[in-house]
Amino acid sequence: MAEVFRTEYRVAWADTDAAGVVHFSRYFLFFERCEEEFYSFLGFSFKDIAEQGLWFPRVEAFCQYKKPARFNDLLLVELCVLELKEKSVRYGFAVQNKESGELLTSGHLVVVAADKRTGRATAIPRMFVDKLAAYVKQVL
Amino acid sequence: MAEVFRTEYRVAWADTDAAGVVHFSRYFLFFERCEEEFYSFLGFSFKDIAEQGLWFPRVEAFCQYKKPARFNDLLLVELCVLELKEKSVRYGFAVQNKESGELLTSGHLVVVAADKRTGRATAIPRMFVDKLAAYVKQVL
Amino acid sequence: MAEVFRTEYRVAWADTDAAGVVHFSRYFLFFERCEEEFYSFLGFSFKDIAEQGLWFPRVEAFCQYKKPARFNDLLLVELCVLELKEKSVRYGFAVQNKESGELLTSGHLVVVAADKRTGRATAIPRMFVDKLAAYVKQVL
Amino acid sequence: MAEVFRTEYRVAWADTDAAGVVHFSRYFLFFERCEEEFYSFLGFSFKDIAEQGLWFPRVEAFCQYKKPARFNDLLLVELCVLELKEKSVRYGFAVQNKESGELLTSGHLVVVAADKRTGRATAIPRMFVDKLAAYVKQVL
Repeated sequence: MAEVFRTEYRVAWADTDAAGVVHFSRYFLFFERCEEEFYSFLGFSFKDIAEQGLWFPRVEAFCQYKKPARFNDLLLVELCVLELKEKSVRYGFAVQNKESGELLTSGHLVVVAADKRTGRATAIPRMFVDKLAAYVKQVL
Repeated sequence: MAEVFRTEYRVAWADTDAAGVVHFSRYFLFFERCEEEFYSFLGFSFKDIAEQGLWFPRVEAFCQYKKPARFNDLLLVELCVLELKEKSVRYGFAVQNKESGELLTSGHLVVVAADKRTGRATAIPRMFVDKLAAYVKQVL
Repeated sequence: MAEVFRTEYRVAWADTDAAGVVHFSRYFLFFERCEEEFYSFLGFSFKDIAEQGLWFPRVEAFCQYKKPARFNDLLLVELCVLELKEKSVRYGFAVQNKESGELLTSGHLVVVAADKRTGRATAIPRMFVDKLAAYVKQVL
Repeated sequence: MAEVFRTEYRVAWADTDAAGVVHFSRYFLFFERCEEEFYSFLGFSFKDIAEQGLWFPRVEAFCQYKKPARFNDLLLVELCVLELKEKSVRYGFAVQNKESGELLTSGHLVVVAADKRTGRATAIPRMFVDKLAAYVKQVL
């Protein structure tokens, strides 16, 4: 059974726009922050990776907006692995209002392992793949 | 034949991240800025619209990343109307490096007309629909 | 003796710029986030305040940069009250690298209580002043 | 007589916060963008500078807020050189609402020339100093 990684985020004043709600672009930062905390949780060291000469550029980003979040709301951000390939990972994200339990947004990021020098896609390191495997969502 | 709206954007230092390239989330701001300039170009007054009690929240955002942009690059941002419905518009965007002509990213935003008080989707004002019609991309 | 409020912040990838360090403008967001967490810690409810028809606009912002922060660094952000007046508060901030203990930046924000309708400066609510008093830094 | 460099900036929706005005931290981005356009205007090539192995980190940032800006406002951003030293420049900035002529904010940035490898302050290149000299504000 697939596992889900969960983290929380408190909406800052600077996340809001003149409609009084979180600006749509900010959810991509919430997704990325959740991904960063996921890597820390897995014991994945950014310094080690940097020394191996890898980047993790995004090749695709998507979000659907169902309900707005407002200043000071506590959000629950969930990550799962939708697809794990040799050179890329598709992460799925869902953001809920933690108090009400309502789903606010859902989306995905496709991340590629790339060689810093050449910029070309490269295989995701074995140790990392092994850890990600537990989070791959099974589609029946 | 469908028209395309074009605008330019000079990459700021603050748009970049530690990989030396524009952060992926920034392209959504470039899309939105292009949309804002498009409205100004159409003679569409934000004050009039606000007085009619409308918002234009986004319900979907998508971007694919092909090549990176760097500090001080001049970008050409193009907008077309992929779909025009009673209550929503799907804008398509493409971002090129103006000097090299290379396509960097492409994506879309789905924007809904909403009543400020109730938050519910509402018909896009007639005058606005008429102006948008010329930008609808014909699919043959 | 004056008290200090402390919070932590993990540097996100999106906080960095092409020099590989946190962009200078981001520290103002770290200051503001610390202030928001301070209000929550004091049991200060944003909804109550909003219902009283108050804003807290900033009238001055200042930061000095001593050493850079990098992606994934854990920061310790400290707040104290440098000056408490009838209608405004001057908060002092210091940001350290939590691991090394090095001071990275220090600065201040001057925040004014303002009436939402008129926009004019107004007295800070009594209950709030009482709570802030313990954090006023004594200058001998 | 000292010269002033002027540029314009149209406030984007993403610059605003839930108070319906431009977030205070954004003015630092307006200052920096004006500085970038100033360098372009001087014919100062970022690629040349990068090849000389220089950065221009900020060591101090300050802003005072007098009146708010709102979505779609056209701003006039002015830069002058308050102080020109061997290794640093203090730029002064003023932001006006272009239509009303009202002063919205004023502030400064202190920028240091630094060696990319060592991170240490270094002399500003001669050619650049010569161009900046015309913008030094004379205090009588």
